[in-house]
Formats: sequence, structure tokens, C-alpha cells
Amino acid sequence: MKDGYVVGLGEYEAEREYDLAGACVVPGLIDAHVHIESSLLAPAEYARLVLRHGTTTVIADPHEIANVRGAPGIEYMLAESMRTPLDILVMLPSCVPATPLDAGGAVLAATDLARFRGREGVIGLAEVMNVPGVLAGDQDLRAKMDLFEVIDGHAPFLSGKDLNAYIYAGVQSDHECTTLAEAREKLLRGMYVMIREGSTEHNLRDLLPLVNACTAPRCCFATDDRHADMLAGKGHIDDCVRIAVASGLEVELALRMATLSAAERFGLHDRGALAPGRLADFCVVDDLDRFRVLRTFKRGIEVIDPGYRPPACLAAPLHARVPEPREILLSGRGEARVIGIVPGQITTRDLRFPVDAAGIPDIGRDILKAVVTDRYRASGSGVGLVHGFGLQEGALAGSVSHDSHNIVAVGVTDADIVRAVGEVVRLGGGLAVVSNSDVTALPLDCAGLMSALPHDEVVRRLAALEEHARRLGAIANPFMYLSFLALTVIPEVRVTERGVFDVRAFADVPLFSE
Amino acid sequence: MKDGYVVGLGEYEAEREYDLAGACVVPGLIDAHVHIESSLLAPAEYARLVLRHGTTTVIADPHEIANVRGAPGIEYMLAESMRTPLDILVMLPSCVPATPLDAGGAVLAATDLARFRGREGVIGLAEVMNVPGVLAGDQDLRAKMDLFEVIDGHAPFLSGKDLNAYIYAGVQSDHECTTLAEAREKLLRGMYVMIREGSTEHNLRDLLPLVNACTAPRCCFATDDRHADMLAGKGHIDDCVRIAVASGLEVELALRMATLSAAERFGLHDRGALAPGRLADFCVVDDLDRFRVLRTFKRGIEVIDPGYRPPACLAAPLHARVPEPREILLSGRGEARVIGIVPGQITTRDLRFPVDAAGIPDIGRDILKAVVTDRYRASGSGVGLVHGFGLQEGALAGSVSHDSHNIVAVGVTDADIVRAVGEVVRLGGGLAVVSNSDVTALPLDCAGLMSALPHDEVVRRLAALEEHARRLGAIANPFMYLSFLALTVIPEVRVTERGVFDVRAFADVPLFSE
Repeated sequence: MKDGYVVGLGEYEAEREYDLAGACVVPGLIDAHVHIESSLLAPAEYARLVLRHGTTTVIADPHEIANVRGAPGIEYMLAESMRTPLDILVMLPSCVPATPLDAGGAVLAATDLARFRGREGVIGLAEVMNVPGVLAGDQDLRAKMDLFEVIDGHAPFLSGKDLNAYIYAGVQSDHECTTLAEAREKLLRGMYVMIREGSTEHNLRDLLPLVNACTAPRCCFATDDRHADMLAGKGHIDDCVRIAVASGLEVELALRMATLSAAERFGLHDRGALAPGRLADFCVVDDLDRFRVLRTFKRGIEVIDPGYRPPACLAAPLHARVPEPREILLSGRGEARVIGIVPGQITTRDLRFPVDAAGIPDIGRDILKAVVTDRYRASGSGVGLVHGFGLQEGALAGSVSHDSHNIVAVGVTDADIVRAVGEVVRLGGGLAVVSNSDVTALPLDCAGLMSALPHDEVVRRLAALEEHARRLGAIANPFMYLSFLALTVIPEVRVTERGVFDVRAFADVPLFSE
Repeated sequence: MKDGYVVGLGEYEAEREYDLAGACVVPGLIDAHVHIESSLLAPAEYARLVLRHGTTTVIADPHEIANVRGAPGIEYMLAESMRTPLDILVMLPSCVPATPLDAGGAVLAATDLARFRGREGVIGLAEVMNVPGVLAGDQDLRAKMDLFEVIDGHAPFLSGKDLNAYIYAGVQSDHECTTLAEAREKLLRGMYVMIREGSTEHNLRDLLPLVNACTAPRCCFATDDRHADMLAGKGHIDDCVRIAVASGLEVELALRMATLSAAERFGLHDRGALAPGRLADFCVVDDLDRFRVLRTFKRGIEVIDPGYRPPACLAAPLHARVPEPREILLSGRGEARVIGIVPGQITTRDLRFPVDAAGIPDIGRDILKAVVTDRYRASGSGVGLVHGFGLQEGALAGSVSHDSHNIVAVGVTDADIVRAVGEVVRLGGGLAVVSNSDVTALPLDCAGLMSALPHDEVVRRLAALEEHARRLGAIANPFMYLSFLALTVIPEVRVTERGVFDVRAFADVPLFSE
């Protein structure tokens, strides 16, 4: 290695030599699609965690902070990315807001994105999630796609002629496949398939049969949304490799996906393999089967953890009005649209229950109130119902709420919901669990999305939140499910500050369907 | 299909529908590296031939005409390429002349190539054959390589640290592998391996064990130098697919190499697969095993042979002095360096024979005189000896003589050699066989490299030349071997207008080694 690049393979004499004592060297791992904000860590803290897991490049979409703060949010991520040896390569958020109906903290038009084209570290256009916009030939979206050569997709369940049209428009990849048939169809139509394994989005085992020696060059790994606790406990792309191998994939193919395939997908010809002229990005693993990362090298230099250094934080004032209990009252009765949590998935189901509003919370049937409070314009709160959270008492709230990042809460009593939302507002953004007189919280000082704390402290507090929620009966990873309750681009049904939203109809709908 | 692109796969209604009666549709075939000049046809005639074999894109290096005519030669090829639906994408010749020692019709410096950068149809830098120049950090060569992202190599037998350095310098591919071990080493160091099957360069069967599902994405087919008769008789990339399949490769992998792998290698994301948004370039084959191309479509339109249309021709005056017999006399005796033809290969061997000049021609040992006459400066002729041509009488000469394209001849008597050279000069460039009073010839009006005749007429005349040469005892394909006798960049030994040349020592050497 010299000046950060591989000079050659063979017998050389060098100024510095390493005895790896029989361990294996593999190219640095690449995450093909991630929202760093979803780790709840600021970029440099995130990097500390993933570098120790052998990741040397992440393809990051600052979609969350862009929804909160627009172009300055992207600038913030680009600036913070300079503070770590990890290569954080940015795909620009294509859909801010996620849909024309969403009202977040910013609107990014093609002219706003054009300013970032050609900037160091900016490599393309991220997840084009406004599928109806693509199919209808939306002009501003078309203008955004015309700005870039590399365009990632986001099209859960899209199939047949609509899928053809979406690809024809220029979208090259997808990371939202949840079934093997869906992934196969997309692959056969020329898309790169990014197999996702996030905190609650577990698609790897289902999609793994897609991968063989012929298809591995067109498949990569992505984590999309992975909380700090999972990064610390399970790992990052190394975890994807281990799961894939444990599920029967040859380690060479898993590594192909984790390195060269991801590099090729993004045209990053300077990495993805240990070969002359490529970046000396690699990690040392104990053994190809166990695949425990022992050391990581970036540009030929061993990464030594520099310790915690406080990040710059981008303020994002909360113009939220904490609702009065009377503002989140429900009335009426009939067949209600209830958001059905799907464990291990980002998708939800449109469940129908006969409901009398006076009977909510219905702990017996696990039907609870979900509230979204506008954090930008203090316009008020929308209310829906959710099945699958499992809470027996108390409430959860958070300012991480894809994609608009309003304040989202689920709880048993209206009083606890209001208290939880109040706690998030008091923190200026954060996650909170309340019950009786207990409050557990994690402040998210960076735009209400990321913590300014060290990663081990964030992990500790996440554990406390998780433990408190579990005591109240909650599903595992409740804050990740909570953060997707308002996500209007993934079927089937969601809740926004306006109320219940049907993703397939792409419209606000009444709680009671009849 | 619409406007030349694939809209989708599935059930559509269209203005025009084709019933293919059970035949198969495969993506248009791609030749990853070819010198169109080596077909002896002008570009549009070449295109007529290969389009009917299912080729829709060729990556062409106008290295031959550039050696004769420099930048105007490249302009000529670019202009003629517009006259055919075949996509002729140009890699610019990196080494004109091939080595600093060669004196051809032009010298192309980095500044000359820079003028072509960004031109429509120009996609990179072709075969960097000046390996010593790369390894020594030659500044002009470095400047050429810095002009382009896509850089093809040409490094026969290069291995170990020198290969590392060559790749480190930025060379991404090689099409000169002749052994499996060589191809494997290059592949493992990150190079794309182009497996060549030309008129006399038969590497496919030797290298095929390299290809499997894991490696196929990094391997392509190339023909490099294929005469019109082979294109007409055997075919083009379809022939490579048939040979590969007959040799045991799965047809899917052979097709991968012939389509998507080649497209990916050159970053041509608009082709290489039949998928939405890609070019509607494809061919119809009778059956995947027989693989006979029945019809070819380019940009959604069936290619109907337009018939012969006379090409524009680029004149290239021959400033050659036909040698007097006394100018090609040899004298002396001792161990002589004799160029050993290697059947089926572009390489030659450095054979040593005890020779008395007075005993040449030595028909018993098949040692004949090889003469190269300067066509640019009338400086005279160089003489060497060659083993393996098999001629019993008469002589062959031609103005196709890689890379400088001087006039090269091999013959039994000095008088016949002089007559053959004289015939080539009289034609203003061409190929000729002479014996007794018989002369068979093919004029090459376009720069002495390509014929202005229709391809079937060129094939007919090539057959007559071949038949005449065979009657004289010559090896099959004698003009292709003849054209490589002066090629100073492929080991081991060659002859130039200065005399014998040792490629490994990279120097002119005496005929007698002691």
C-alpha cells in the first residue's frame, strides 16, 4: 500500500509490515443504502461504530434531516462527514416531502438539488419514492432525475407494467423488496436489488434465495434504518454477511455483495476489491465463516477509535402545540381502519375492526390510539388506531417519524399520550416513554433526529427506553415501528397530522370506513 | 419498444407485432475490442457483415489507420461509422507509433487525443501496448491515460509486480492472454479479461476454463483481428458464443460475456440486456444451443441489408522504394534468430537455427526470408528469417503490417519477393501472391488497409489469395500471420524495416546471434 492505494499483491518490502497471524483480509464493506439519522447518532459517532465492524464506505441518503431542515440539513451532513475516515457518499434525497400531500420542514425542488451536483461526495439521486409522480411524469421529479446518472429506487410491491414504466423512467435499484417474487421480478427487469436488514425491516432471510453466483453481481446489502443499539450489538454489513452465511450462502458471494457489487452499482471503480490501484480499504476478520472483524484499515491506515468528539448540532426548533386531551378525542363507531404492525417489516396492514370510539384503548384486542402532532406549523394533531404495539399502560412518543418527522405517539390513555408528546417537545426533540410518574427519555438535539451523545450512552439510553417500554408490554424495537407509523409511501395504511392515510389510494381517509 | 428503447416486458398491444414462431430473442451482441481495419473492409461494409451475425455494438480501436494517417484516419473512421446502424464506439489508439522505436505514418501525442475527448462515439483509451512506457512513467503516455476514465490494456505475458504496476497505473483490461494462468492472474488483480478469437489468434478454447458464473461478469469476447472471410464464413461474436457452448460453457454465461459483461465493462448502461429503458438492440436466434442468428434489430428496427454503397476512401500515398534484389541480400553464417510462427497465436518464438545465408531459402527446414519495406520514407528494407510459413515457391506481400503498416513480404526467391512488393506498391496498397507468371491480388484502396469493394467480392478475392498461397504450400491464413511479422509489441521476435527486433529486449538485434 502507498498513499492510501493498493500497490500490488505479492512479496514486497515495506516500511511497515503487519503480521496478521493467519487472519483473513477482505475488502472494506459497503452499505448500499442507509439513513445515518436512523442510527440516532450524529455522523462521526455513527462512523465510529460502523468502522469497527469493517465498513469503510456507506451510501447515505440524508433524507430525514432534509425533511426537517432542507438544504442546510444536507450541508450539515456533508460537513459532518468530513470528520471521519469513513467514506460517507451522499445520494441526494429525491422526495422531500415524500409525497405532495406531506408537509414537512422543507420542500426540495430540482433547482435546490442542482446546487449539490458535482459536489465532492455527492454521487446521485436517492430512493425515488414518489412512484405515482414517476408514472405520471411529474415535471419537477423528471428534472431531478435528469440531473444525475445514478438513481436509486424505492417501490414496494411495484410490479408488471407500472414497474416497467418506473424502470424505463431511469430508476436503477430497489431496496424495498419484501418477497422473493418481487425481488426476482425487479432483478429480471434490470434493477439492482439491495437486500435490506434494518432494525425492524428484516428482508434478508426471505430474499436470500435470490442470490447465486449469477445474480450476486446485481445484489447488495443495505441497512436503511438501523438503530445504534443494533449496530453496537449485532453489527453492520458484517452482520448481514454473517446472517447470509448462516442461512446457507457461500461466504464469497456474500462478500461479493458487500464489496464489489455495491461498488459497481455506484460506479465506484476505486474500491470494492483488493487490487492494484484501488483504495486500500479493508478489514481483518478472524475467519471467513465466523466473520468477526478484528481490525479495519481505511486508505491504508488502521482505524484507531479517536473517542467521542461532540458533534456540531443543527438546531431544528419545534413549533409544536402539545395537544390538549380533548384534541385527540375520537367519536363514532363502525368498521374502523386500524394500522396493523407487521413484525419484522416496514409495511403495515389495513386491518378492519368493529370499533366503538368509547371503547378505546381496547387492550384486549390491542387497539391503541396513534397520534401525530405537527411539529412545524402547530396546526394540531391527527389521530388513528394501531394494532400490534402491545402496550398495557403508558405511552411512547418520538420526534423521529418518517418522513416528515412530526411528533408521533402511541399510548393507552390520552393523558399519557399528551404527557409523552409534551416530554418530546420539552426536550426539543427526542424519544420518550411515560407511565405513572416514570419518564424515560433520549434527547435528540440534532434536528430532533440524532443525539449529540456518545454512541455508548445512546445505546444505554435506548436500552432503558426499550426496557421501560417492555415493562409496559410493548413489542421489541417499539421506536422503530413508531417511526414508521406516519410513513405515507409504504403500504398499506398510515397516520399523519391530518388523520388516517391510505397509501394505496394515496389519500386521507376517515377512520371509520362505513 | 418505442423510439428505439425497450418499454417493457409483458403483454402489450403495439402498432407492429412480430411473430417469432418460437425462436429466441437475446440482447444484441457486443465485440469488446476490434480493429475494423483488420477485416479488410471499410466500416459500413464491415457493419453489413457483422449486423447479420447479431452484433449491434463494437468497441473499435482505429489503431491501424491511425498509424498510417494519424488524426485524419480517426476522423475518417468516425465519419464512416455514421453510415451504418451498427454502433461503432471508438477507443482512441493510445500508442501511435506502437513503440518509440517504430516510425509509422503518424505520431499521436496526448494533445492530439485530447481533441477527440467528449466527441460522440468516443468512449476511452484503447490498448495501452507501450508497457515499458507505462512502467517507466512516460509522461506523454501518462497524459493520455489521464484524459480518459476507460482504459484498455495490451500486455501479453505481463505478470507479478510489473503487472501490478501496470494495473496501478490505471489499465483496466487485457485481451492478450494466451494461457489460462496468465488470464487468471490478470482477473484476480481486477482486470477485465477479453477472450479473443480472431483469424489467427485463437485463445478461446485455452481460456474458457477461466469462465464460470462468478467470473463471467468480468470476462467478454473480442475478435481483435478477423478477416472478412472469417466473418462471412464463421461469423462474429455469435461464433464465439457457439465455440464456447460447444466447449462446454453454459449458453447463459456465454451470452452474459457477449452482452451485459461487455456493456458493463465500458459503462454502457443503456445496453447489454433486454430491460425497460435500455436500447432495443437484439437478435433472434433459432435456438440457444445452435445459436444461428436469424434476424437483428437495432434500436427497435429490424436491420435490412441496404446492399453495397461505395465507401469514401482515405488516400494514403505509398512513398515506398521497391527494393532491388541486392538490397535484400543476406550474408554471413552462424546461429540465426528465426521468427517462429505459432499456429493459432499472435505470439512468435525466438527460434535459433544454424544458418548459412547462402543456404536461404532453406525449404527443407522451412526457413524463408521476411522483408519489411518502409512505406513512408522510402528509407529501404529490413530483412529477417521466418519459420512456419511453409512456402515452397513464390512470395506473399501486403501493406497490412501491424502496427506501422509498412510493406511486409515473405518468399522463396528474392526475385519473387521483389515482385510481390512491387505489386503491392503498384496497387497503391493491397495484398498479393506471386509465383512464376501468376499474380493474385486484393487492392486496399483505403489507406492500404481496407478495400473499397463489397464484402462478398473481398471474400472472393481473399479465397483466391488463400488458394494461390496454399498451392505454393503456405500455412492457412497466411496474410494474417504476415501482418503480424512486424508487430514489435508482442513477444518474442519480429522484423522491421530496420531488421530483426527482439521484443523482450525491446531493441534491434543482429540476425546472427553469435
